Amino acid sequence: MKLQLALDTVSLIQAKEIIHNLADVIDIVEIGTPLVVREGLKAVAEIKIAYPHLAVLADLKLMDAGKYTANMGFAAGADIVTVLGVSENSTIQAVAEAAQQQEKAVMVDMIAVLDIASRVEQVEQFGVGYICVHTGVDTQHLESSPLDKLKTLKKACRTAKTAVAGGIKAKTLPDILSHQPDIIIVGGGITRQENCREAAVEIKNLITGSC
Amino acid sequence: MKLQLALDTVSLIQAKEIIHNLADVIDIVEIGTPLVVREGLKAVAEIKIAYPHLAVLADLKLMDAGKYTANMGFAAGADIVTVLGVSENSTIQAVAEAAQQQEKAVMVDMIAVLDIASRVEQVEQFGVGYICVHTGVDTQHLESSPLDKLKTLKKACRTAKTAVAGGIKAKTLPDILSHQPDIIIVGGGITRQENCREAAVEIKNLITGSC
Repeated sequence: MKLQLALDTVSLIQAKEIIHNLADVIDIVEIGTPLVVREGLKAVAEIKIAYPHLAVLADLKLMDAGKYTANMGFAAGADIVTVLGVSENSTIQAVAEAAQQQEKAVMVDMIAVLDIASRVEQVEQFGVGYICVHTGVDTQHLESSPLDKLKTLKKACRTAKTAVAGGIKAKTLPDILSHQPDIIIVGGGITRQENCREAAVEIKNLITGSC
Repeated sequence: MKLQLALDTVSLIQAKEIIHNLADVIDIVEIGTPLVVREGLKAVAEIKIAYPHLAVLADLKLMDAGKYTANMGFAAGADIVTVLGVSENSTIQAVAEAAQQQEKAVMVDMIAVLDIASRVEQVEQFGVGYICVHTGVDTQHLESSPLDKLKTLKKACRTAKTAVAGGIKAKTLPDILSHQPDIIIVGGGITRQENCREAAVEIKNLITGSC
């Protein structure tokens, strides 16, 4: 099980400071959508160059122009790019093909997908590497945890690895861990804590202890 | 009726060259999603500063963190930001509120929305300024034109202004114009033609002639 650190509402300079402090604790660093919007793919490139041992995920949330934009992400140094589960099949297929050609990976973000189980079955046919259930920032006041979605995902997945995101903190982690996703994605649960390193180490220890 | 030029698969330098040549012909310049991914909001800021008389649309295709990311776009100089019609209601609502607070505008991109008529009814309740029907790059081999979607949109819209995008060229424009959308969005129909300026002027003349 891997720990992915999501960097969203920070500048590139702040992102680098955070990673510098956590590079031995995390497995994957996510350049979140707001950070990509703010800085462009420079954020992906600079972080991959500085920390080549970390996998870098570019949270592009692709919705169209899948091949072109995924390839830009891979060229900048991303190991994984995301595509939206609500996008057209042709977009997901194009991103999955680009990933295969570049020997990189794609993660399908299931945010706002209504019927997760049947969409998992469809997108797995395109050979996607990862599928992520995700309670978005804008809906976290309505749904407190992505736990139910994770249960559905784990039941539906046949070939893809599983990931889970959405307001996860050390306190809410044990329930999540009992379903053994392949990737745990944490943002504010680390970056908004008083001591980021302590929070990250606590989460990493919980993950390691549950494997 | 306004002409929006979409700049997608170009660098910022190429975008500036194209706009320099067309600034008296177009009404709105769209910093397309791939250009935002490539360069970040710098692309929005530099183009708005250089061409303050043009409205600038940042095609952020927001799917989450609506208020935060929309406000970054507005702060960079965008007059309009886009949010996806397939996103959660809370995201569309957050972007619409941010637009109202900043006295800017939001466009809902209906790409991949299955039931356009009922989604229009829902999103209009959030006070969105523009709704755009959009045949994506990845589906243009399946659907040749966004015309049918435009008919549905025009019939369903009560308060929002309407926009249409997806492979529009001078040749396919007359059918579109007969339905009188408020904004015609053209990308490759201008930027990929041998003479960009001639193509843009031809399209602008068709639009002006139909008003």
